Amino acid sequence: MITKNLVKQVASLRQQKFRKELGLFVVEGRKMVEELLRSGFETVGLYATQTFLADYPVFAEAESVNEVQMEQMSGQDTPPGILAVVRIPQQGEIEPRSKFVLALDGIANPGNMGTLIRTAEWFGIRDVVCSMDCVELWNPKTVQATMGSLFRVKVWKTDLPAFLQKAKSEGKAVYGALLEGENLFQMKEKPEGFIVIGSESHGIRKEVLPCLTHPITIPRMGGSTTESLNAAVAGAIILAEMTR
Amino acid sequence: MITKNLVKQVASLRQQKFRKELGLFVVEGRKMVEELLRSGFETVGLYATQTFLADYPVFAEAESVNEVQMEQMSGQDTPPGILAVVRIPQQGEIEPRSKFVLALDGIANPGNMGTLIRTAEWFGIRDVVCSMDCVELWNPKTVQATMGSLFRVKVWKTDLPAFLQKAKSEGKAVYGALLEGENLFQMKEKPEGFIVIGSESHGIRKEVLPCLTHPITIPRMGGSTTESLNAAVAGAIILAEMTR
Repeated sequence: MITKNLVKQVASLRQQKFRKELGLFVVEGRKMVEELLRSGFETVGLYATQTFLADYPVFAEAESVNEVQMEQMSGQDTPPGILAVVRIPQQGEIEPRSKFVLALDGIANPGNMGTLIRTAEWFGIRDVVCSMDCVELWNPKTVQATMGSLFRVKVWKTDLPAFLQKAKSEGKAVYGALLEGENLFQMKEKPEGFIVIGSESHGIRKEVLPCLTHPITIPRMGGSTTESLNAAVAGAIILAEMTR
Repeated sequence: MITKNLVKQVASLRQQKFRKELGLFVVEGRKMVEELLRSGFETVGLYATQTFLADYPVFAEAESVNEVQMEQMSGQDTPPGILAVVRIPQQGEIEPRSKFVLALDGIANPGNMGTLIRTAEWFGIRDVVCSMDCVELWNPKTVQATMGSLFRVKVWKTDLPAFLQKAKSEGKAVYGALLEGENLFQMKEKPEGFIVIGSESHGIRKEVLPCLTHPITIPRMGGSTTESLNAAVAGAIILAEMTR
């Protein structure tokens, strides 16, 4: 039997304050939990409703909870019926493994953050470096939007301007999406390096601009008067083009 | 002085039922309202707080409301201070004007819907045809995600399978994003036609599949095991490639 206190604790993980304090976050839904269990992340608790367990007996190891308890624990309007409590891993040293590294400067929207990580993985990028003020990775909406990629892509938070300045001084390429730059579709060389995507409202910020070695632009077509692209969309178009 | 009844009516437009009944929708925020006023859409009411009007006296034509009234009218957590009530235009006959037409099959998420319209405009596509079950264009979240593109891109709802079947029978090209298809980046011809993006959970549905003349795929890179891309991201990558 699950205790009232435990239900309350899980519910508290909707707030960043308690995720930080307890070092835990929540993963919901069958597919996400499957990916979690295949990953190296530490599952601290696994809970499912009886209805869910009847449909998916393979999750028999989960502790059975009733619908009311699940509703209280879940952060979703329609709880999917299975929920895991997971330990937030230690960040560790930044050691990129892939040819390209995605660098995020002030991404504030959890959906965009998660989508960028999901898209990075699609294009073979396994390392993401974020500015300190990017939205938290363990936010339930970010977790959901990654569709499981957060279990495989390594995400670091760091002092982004200092980090990119160091990379530049070591001779690495630092690409950045701006409204004025080299036409993305006419770039000749795309060897490897860092790809910087700026925030939804301010783009790449002035502290990061001097770190760029290659300012690039996604060209508008057909006399379009649109001001900008969504940050996750701009990131996706650049990742697709750079890694092809 | 704005009446209590009017405040209540504007607030009611958060619900689809009342948008339908009254034939009105809401636009919020300075940039969005600027784009609205430059468009051919009919503005039925324009309201701003005194704080907003002090910062932007150019909107002096707006009716002044107090902060409490604005909070009641606004659908946003932090009301931007200016809000317009706009007449929903008649749909009219489907008459595509651009070389490519975006076709959306069952897009359910307002953010994705709006982002797809915004991205289409960036790439010079001014016509979007939607299946009847796509999320409503006048939903406040859709409106916001278009970032003003909904005032310039024409969006029609129709029986999508019948519409695309007719297009195919007339010899038009119908491209569709699937998990199995021709490599998007190796396509030789990209002359013109319809580009179909499927729903978040089911992709392109079986009723629409027979209408495709060119099934295409965004290739995964670097041994990625991701299952899929976000619908707006997949759409953006295809639009970028097709229109370049």
